[in-house]
Amino acid sequence: MSRPGEAPSAAIVTVGTELTTGLRLDTNTAAVAAALTGHGLRVAETASLPDDRASLARSLGRLTRECDVVVVTGGLGPTHDDVTREAASEALALPLDRDADLAEGLASVARRHHDPEAAAHVFRQADVLGGADVLPATTGTAPGQIVPTPGGGSLILLPGPPSEMLPMLEVALGRLPGTDRAATRVLASVGLPESDVQVKVERVLARSGWGEGIGFTVLARPAEVHAVLTDEGAGAETLDAASRAVCVALGDACFSSDGSTLAETVLELARERGETLSTAESCTGGMVAAALTEPAGASDVFLGSVVSYSNEVKVVVLGVGDSLLAQHGAVSEAVVRAMAEGTRRATGSSLSVAVTGIAGPGGAVPGKPVGTVWFGVADGSGTVAVTRRLMGDRAGIRTRATITALDLLRRRLAGLPVG
Amino acid sequence: MSRPGEAPSAAIVTVGTELTTGLRLDTNTAAVAAALTGHGLRVAETASLPDDRASLARSLGRLTRECDVVVVTGGLGPTHDDVTREAASEALALPLDRDADLAEGLASVARRHHDPEAAAHVFRQADVLGGADVLPATTGTAPGQIVPTPGGGSLILLPGPPSEMLPMLEVALGRLPGTDRAATRVLASVGLPESDVQVKVERVLARSGWGEGIGFTVLARPAEVHAVLTDEGAGAETLDAASRAVCVALGDACFSSDGSTLAETVLELARERGETLSTAESCTGGMVAAALTEPAGASDVFLGSVVSYSNEVKVVVLGVGDSLLAQHGAVSEAVVRAMAEGTRRATGSSLSVAVTGIAGPGGAVPGKPVGTVWFGVADGSGTVAVTRRLMGDRAGIRTRATITALDLLRRRLAGLPVG
Repeated sequence: MSRPGEAPSAAIVTVGTELTTGLRLDTNTAAVAAALTGHGLRVAETASLPDDRASLARSLGRLTRECDVVVVTGGLGPTHDDVTREAASEALALPLDRDADLAEGLASVARRHHDPEAAAHVFRQADVLGGADVLPATTGTAPGQIVPTPGGGSLILLPGPPSEMLPMLEVALGRLPGTDRAATRVLASVGLPESDVQVKVERVLARSGWGEGIGFTVLARPAEVHAVLTDEGAGAETLDAASRAVCVALGDACFSSDGSTLAETVLELARERGETLSTAESCTGGMVAAALTEPAGASDVFLGSVVSYSNEVKVVVLGVGDSLLAQHGAVSEAVVRAMAEGTRRATGSSLSVAVTGIAGPGGAVPGKPVGTVWFGVADGSGTVAVTRRLMGDRAGIRTRATITALDLLRRRLAGLPVG
Repeated sequence: MSRPGEAPSAAIVTVGTELTTGLRLDTNTAAVAAALTGHGLRVAETASLPDDRASLARSLGRLTRECDVVVVTGGLGPTHDDVTREAASEALALPLDRDADLAEGLASVARRHHDPEAAAHVFRQADVLGGADVLPATTGTAPGQIVPTPGGGSLILLPGPPSEMLPMLEVALGRLPGTDRAATRVLASVGLPESDVQVKVERVLARSGWGEGIGFTVLARPAEVHAVLTDEGAGAETLDAASRAVCVALGDACFSSDGSTLAETVLELARERGETLSTAESCTGGMVAAALTEPAGASDVFLGSVVSYSNEVKVVVLGVGDSLLAQHGAVSEAVVRAMAEGTRRATGSSLSVAVTGIAGPGGAVPGKPVGTVWFGVADGSGTVAVTRRLMGDRAGIRTRATITALDLLRRRLAGLPVG
């Protein structure tokens, strides 16, 4: 439990043998951790546990004694290995009773099953812990529960699928006693090494004397580096001033200070400038287009894409000359320029980006090792091409190529030098 | 600690405040869990902890008492928030001494720093716990350590970056006492509800009397359900027989029993049958093409894709009639058929799939709520169109539409009914 004046403490437990055997990547922990942190809670520990009632009960007992809020995801479904309700009942010594209203609501779900045994399992989801506040299911069938703990804290049980869990988590957090939002600012950059970002942030904070009241951490991900500043007593105005100063220090590599993703930044710049976008993709296979269409409302500015995996599609759909392909090969400056111009023509967009490269593991030729990628950016004023040697395995090269393509669009839209 | 006859137990601890605040997705836990499970260990618990020496020491103390093997990743670097060595020293009451040979090896790293303070920090990475076996750094600068625990187990300290951590983990596992690989089979299906899969697997195992020696779990992800069978004493032959029987029980919804993804299954079927593939995508924005190009060697059979986000691209690039769009709207049977036929013509593929739908949150029209998606499959024998009402938020609908499109390709390639 937290001491007076401290942020309330929290723990997160994700349940499922698929997590402890590595069959599934756990994305719930990060999503819940971000929500709890944003709600002003201090996450002291996160755990993943197998579908084992006894060990889950033991952990829930310990964590509900140690923390103010414990959020559990998973194990609320209808099947035999869904044991979270029973484990919570054992850990907190609370009865588990079938709720008649919930059971009635599940009757239509049960009728969809051809099998009477499967239909009977469905009703386990109506079992509610003594004193719990029920969180109705929205997209799925399993309701969540907020269970009061003996120490005056809350045990929050949520279903595992993120699309069911996340809306319910928001509702649950809204019912907790009010807490302050911990202020953070994320300065996101592309193209700088992690250690350079680290030194730049250190210098800004040291020079201005802000170092005491502002904490920071530097996070590297493929092709992006994020500097995260946290208010540790400096106050909101100082945090904003420090955020602006770090952004200036990072220069034109800094693409966002408000949590926007790179794709969102590109779409917003295009919207402001009245430009429309298209892509032509070989090694990224549609990933740049997929990233640009992830945000809602992308259709304002994104018109379309041609994924030209074969040379024939490059020729027929994009109008790349046969002779260019024969003379320079598909991964070349001449071809990437023709691809960028071809997709701009085919889609009618004002601005386009093209990508062609060798994602590996095969496909390397003399002078063009795996990771060689050409990028082209075309608009009404002409076409620019740049090449990069990207690191990583096939997935890493594809991700880095996608981010580089998006960043070239950003730079062109922001009037920064490209290449 | 495990009891005699049981698989040795393991715990995984990933260290970093970026994990407990949700700033970073933890991928190390799944990678280490898969490696430990493959090595025959039973992962009893995984935890993520902030960069806090006291709480890390407490958790390491508990977990080294409870488990035979504890693997820690992160917190071995040179900076002030790298506290794993000190926490392990405190937890196991072992001295931490600077190793002269390691320090000498780090001298060249220290010289690369312009800053004398940063240079001095570098040598913290030469601090070794009493009795530990050092795992030399390969790609990074931080060595790992295998530390004997009082109960006769091992505490394995590894660096955080996956590219440094994973090769070192393999070396560490090679030095542990030999264990058997746990055998599992994954039966992957599309289109069946989770509880139906559960009941079908239960019946197969009960009917055949295999229930005692084979464990199973059912994993749902958007639009896919995986049944995982584990050998718990039945032996490899019985596990294979059970796997085949479950596959039969799941019927034509079962697309893989060897760990292949849906995209890999589609590519392999196309390769066997000498077919080539293309896609035409609206609401999925290139995700189907991106999925089909994820596996290496996709270019054998995948030719390309047209992402027709705007109506103009549908008309100009895919040849969809203006009148079809005006009369039926972009999300309609007539348009999806024309899209599938258009991309097949444009790319020259023998088989194509088209997707057009309303991913939301905006865009719903009377009779076409968010989640309405039309799919078309075209080959030389004609075109089939089907519609689905998909659940979830924008990301969920896009993911489900992607999987449905891949599954329609699989069904057409396998000669199963489509739609």
